[in-house]
Amino acid sequence: MLRRHDCCDTQDVIPEESSMEFGLVGLGRMGGNMARRLARKGMRIALHNRSHEVSAAIAAETGHLACASLADLVAALQAPRIVWLMLPAGEATEQALQALAPLLGAGDLVVDGANAYYKDDQRHAAMMAAHGIDYADAGVSGGVWGLENGYCIMFGGSEAAAARLQPYMEALAPTPTEGWLHTGPVGSGHFVKMVHNGIEYGMMQALAEGFALMKNKPGFDLDVGAIAELWRHGSVVRSWLLDLSADFLAQDPALETIQPFVADSGEGRWTALEAIEQGIPAPVMSLALMMRFASQGKGDYAAKMLAKMRQGFGGHAIKGTEK
Amino acid sequence: MLRRHDCCDTQDVIPEESSMEFGLVGLGRMGGNMARRLARKGMRIALHNRSHEVSAAIAAETGHLACASLADLVAALQAPRIVWLMLPAGEATEQALQALAPLLGAGDLVVDGANAYYKDDQRHAAMMAAHGIDYADAGVSGGVWGLENGYCIMFGGSEAAAARLQPYMEALAPTPTEGWLHTGPVGSGHFVKMVHNGIEYGMMQALAEGFALMKNKPGFDLDVGAIAELWRHGSVVRSWLLDLSADFLAQDPALETIQPFVADSGEGRWTALEAIEQGIPAPVMSLALMMRFASQGKGDYAAKMLAKMRQGFGGHAIKGTEK
Amino acid sequence: MLRRHDCCDTQDVIPEESSMEFGLVGLGRMGGNMARRLARKGMRIALHNRSHEVSAAIAAETGHLACASLADLVAALQAPRIVWLMLPAGEATEQALQALAPLLGAGDLVVDGANAYYKDDQRHAAMMAAHGIDYADAGVSGGVWGLENGYCIMFGGSEAAAARLQPYMEALAPTPTEGWLHTGPVGSGHFVKMVHNGIEYGMMQALAEGFALMKNKPGFDLDVGAIAELWRHGSVVRSWLLDLSADFLAQDPALETIQPFVADSGEGRWTALEAIEQGIPAPVMSLALMMRFASQGKGDYAAKMLAKMRQGFGGHAIKGTEK
Amino acid sequence: MLRRHDCCDTQDVIPEESSMEFGLVGLGRMGGNMARRLARKGMRIALHNRSHEVSAAIAAETGHLACASLADLVAALQAPRIVWLMLPAGEATEQALQALAPLLGAGDLVVDGANAYYKDDQRHAAMMAAHGIDYADAGVSGGVWGLENGYCIMFGGSEAAAARLQPYMEALAPTPTEGWLHTGPVGSGHFVKMVHNGIEYGMMQALAEGFALMKNKPGFDLDVGAIAELWRHGSVVRSWLLDLSADFLAQDPALETIQPFVADSGEGRWTALEAIEQGIPAPVMSLALMMRFASQGKGDYAAKMLAKMRQGFGGHAIKGTEK
Repeated sequence: MLRRHDCCDTQDVIPEESSMEFGLVGLGRMGGNMARRLARKGMRIALHNRSHEVSAAIAAETGHLACASLADLVAALQAPRIVWLMLPAGEATEQALQALAPLLGAGDLVVDGANAYYKDDQRHAAMMAAHGIDYADAGVSGGVWGLENGYCIMFGGSEAAAARLQPYMEALAPTPTEGWLHTGPVGSGHFVKMVHNGIEYGMMQALAEGFALMKNKPGFDLDVGAIAELWRHGSVVRSWLLDLSADFLAQDPALETIQPFVADSGEGRWTALEAIEQGIPAPVMSLALMMRFASQGKGDYAAKMLAKMRQGFGGHAIKGTEK
Repeated sequence: MLRRHDCCDTQDVIPEESSMEFGLVGLGRMGGNMARRLARKGMRIALHNRSHEVSAAIAAETGHLACASLADLVAALQAPRIVWLMLPAGEATEQALQALAPLLGAGDLVVDGANAYYKDDQRHAAMMAAHGIDYADAGVSGGVWGLENGYCIMFGGSEAAAARLQPYMEALAPTPTEGWLHTGPVGSGHFVKMVHNGIEYGMMQALAEGFALMKNKPGFDLDVGAIAELWRHGSVVRSWLLDLSADFLAQDPALETIQPFVADSGEGRWTALEAIEQGIPAPVMSLALMMRFASQGKGDYAAKMLAKMRQGFGGHAIKGTEK
Repeated sequence: MLRRHDCCDTQDVIPEESSMEFGLVGLGRMGGNMARRLARKGMRIALHNRSHEVSAAIAAETGHLACASLADLVAALQAPRIVWLMLPAGEATEQALQALAPLLGAGDLVVDGANAYYKDDQRHAAMMAAHGIDYADAGVSGGVWGLENGYCIMFGGSEAAAARLQPYMEALAPTPTEGWLHTGPVGSGHFVKMVHNGIEYGMMQALAEGFALMKNKPGFDLDVGAIAELWRHGSVVRSWLLDLSADFLAQDPALETIQPFVADSGEGRWTALEAIEQGIPAPVMSLALMMRFASQGKGDYAAKMLAKMRQGFGGHAIKGTEK
Repeated sequence: MLRRHDCCDTQDVIPEESSMEFGLVGLGRMGGNMARRLARKGMRIALHNRSHEVSAAIAAETGHLACASLADLVAALQAPRIVWLMLPAGEATEQALQALAPLLGAGDLVVDGANAYYKDDQRHAAMMAAHGIDYADAGVSGGVWGLENGYCIMFGGSEAAAARLQPYMEALAPTPTEGWLHTGPVGSGHFVKMVHNGIEYGMMQALAEGFALMKNKPGFDLDVGAIAELWRHGSVVRSWLLDLSADFLAQDPALETIQPFVADSGEGRWTALEAIEQGIPAPVMSLALMMRFASQGKGDYAAKMLAKMRQGFGGHAIKGTEK
């Protein structure tokens, strides 16, 4: 078999790639494993990553084609092409789309598979449409477990885009018929993924609150790891998040070395914004987000004001700066 | 085989029941199916229900022994007995315990398997201990699906009680080794079940909020049933509550004939009380409970006051009684 | 200087208008009373309203000058002019600014005094700056009571704008030195007003929740009107919102004829959005907003889902469509 | 009538005490100032405090009578007596009531003026009634400012108790006719005070959240002290809590030396419990309480679990123990 991974820097003929249509840009935690899963399913794709060593390593591992630039990646694909972006939402995705617009042509399809805001998709689709390029947005769930279990993918775009993406969905999803869905028009994929993450925030917070009440309960000396494992079998709250919790609580129920700091992400915030914009109450999602803000120390000024007000009206002592 | 279901009213010898030690009191939705599951596992127990027809019917179906009174049930069991109550928490359970106290003797074990408040267990255990009777409390999850899938059971009590209950746990749980746990001292079983339900409230509310945002979203015409089904495969929010939602949303995504009224139960309230008593923040559980109160119209007076305040300072119109 | 405005209600020469520099556009509940308050303070201004009858009536009452069009209003003012808009935020304000841009000239100042989003101010200021027109944004609190008590005004803009606005602030505010503030650059006035309203939402909800707990309390038969009046004197919660509540609760503590529907406004939503964008927890403001959504029936789909989930796992009855 | 109290600071005959009927027990921040205010209004009462030096000092300052023991205090009063307790709720109050029961007699009246739980009042009233002693419960608001401004007092008890307390209410309240109220039966005074404090929690949190959003806002450099002062004049949120905030924010807007730790009290918790028990949504009060818990670090375990879950499904880094 003839294959050259430095191909993109050469003019050599690469006959076996003649039918390669799918390029993946961005090989981080998610993108890298998606490339691996596609390889396992017998697909061959072109890869590009900001750091070429990453592309080269994954190409060596998978048999995919590493391309040093977006232009190389586009050149390596046969039209009509599919270019799937797995870049950080925001600046990186924005730049890639602007770079791709002149490189791609009519009939090509760009898919943003990162955690983008659905309103940006609508803007991006219009931007690409001006170049005759089709656009789809895909929300991908599954995290680091997707490689083994398959990804849960929800994507928005035209019927034509959906038809072209179907073989890749069948490979990436847990089974060919389960775990992927064409949700509707452009933006709807990321919208559904956004709401998914909002629900995730609420579920996580509910679990965390409950385990905190159990861990803190005097007198019962509860084994929270055993309880999490218990609930995995037949309880109403059985869930994948509980499965994960059972794993780490069995090993370390006290969590003493963990800092009580919880990062938040765009999708959690966007879901909360969406609720306000729609005028639909979503108190649990919103509160789950705000408890993360609080864990980051972002509620400190408010707490200081409360301490001062209490001092102001009741003469209550306030703690000083000893913290 | 000789068996008489009117046995308890007679003095006839019932030889094959000589080793029967377990009586189940209360054959509602939960208790009835638990009786059936024990029968399927080859166990034979005595049954009692306020309405004897129910006992008789389940006895006919299962081969268990129907007893017309608590006294008959106690008489039908060989000491040391286990009497498991599946009665509504509160008055019914209270009365049954008071009736059982003089009927049972040293070495017998009473188990409250209903959704009782763990503080009541501590009181009940002392009450029974005064008669030399052991006491355990069991929280049982699994709902109407427990018959087929097995129940998830968490129980509190002495080591001796746990040892005696083990065979029944192995039969009731999804598998002999999974889905049941001796959580600690008396009260701890219902405490853990209480927190389980608090988590359930939060998870349910998170899911409901998310689906509401999707159903209401203009422009995307989302198929919420298909999305629920999608998420069952590989997503972070996959869970049994999602499985159930996928079922009913596939059939009726609009839910137009359902009234937006959500009942709440003791356990949801007790978990919220517990958070306050422990001084542990549980905003998501608490809010999930309060949204149920709001769905019951219990926030109406506050809403009226807000409308009046707005009128008071801004001259804003308020809606009248046309509703 | 002699000037004639054929636009106006009279053909007479109006010499005393030679120094009129201030025009007020939009004579609704807020604008109309602001015009009246300025008249009481001895100021004379030009008025314009979509419906000229309103302008004419207020002009007749106050001695101000009613102008039938924006062009007339501009023509009636001596440069450098101040044109203060009290129009609904959004379309109406947008159109007025676009109409004013070509009519006004370098050195003129436009003030948006309505409840606008501070991000729109920043865009509007740039839009007007392109025509050499200065721009300020003013948040005005005080509602229907402002005419008598004076308005609380917070405005953003340049130092020059602040200097020009000072005489009008001194007249509109409760006292010349209290109740008005130049908060900072353009946008800051409406930002501060937005947060003010967010706080207002939280305070209102806190009061409403408390009175609901008292009104509903069995056994005490509390006189909520008397309690509101009581707390006005020496309590920690004394406040203007309590004053208003005492008024209406004294007359109608049961609120039976009021519909439990609470409208929400842009500023409540914007404050909640701001908290999310800043990543600062604002649970009370956000919840107060969401309880208004719930009062509008916007939580009904979520409630229906909860009822269905309960039915799904526990066989719990759900209410039908009888409501 | 001649009476000698060897208990007291003097051996002199004290004829003017012949009509002294009112004893105050507990001279902390609240009780001490209440004693002073009664003195300013020309009333003379008996004092008792655990530490006699405090009693003696206040007696010296006010002309009241310092008594070294409860028995002395009772002996110093002419029947029918009023003994008003301003002790910490819980143990201290419980002990005082038990000590007073045999000392007092039929027709005497005990008032608990501390921040007690209304359910305890109902129990205490029954306890005292068994000795023929009347009982009233008084919620007292006003904090350290009550001495100057007067206290806002809401009390529950019999009509007879109310009649006897009226002269003291007229002296303690801001004016003889404003700021005190007989709210209803025993328990209702503390119930109303409890709800008052719940509202206070919500209002405080609303203000704190708003000022946090302003202080943190980039680009505007807002002067939060000036804004608080501004809003005191004519705004919808004007309130005593805002007055206090304006005071301390003017001096120290950054609050850098204050620790973000907010204590909570029984009344805040009881109000949240009450909402759950009544089944009335009180999300703002409840959240305000829970944000205080969070400020105390009581949400840390939940936050740690969230960080671990994120790591579990997404491989997200978690912060270590460097904090």
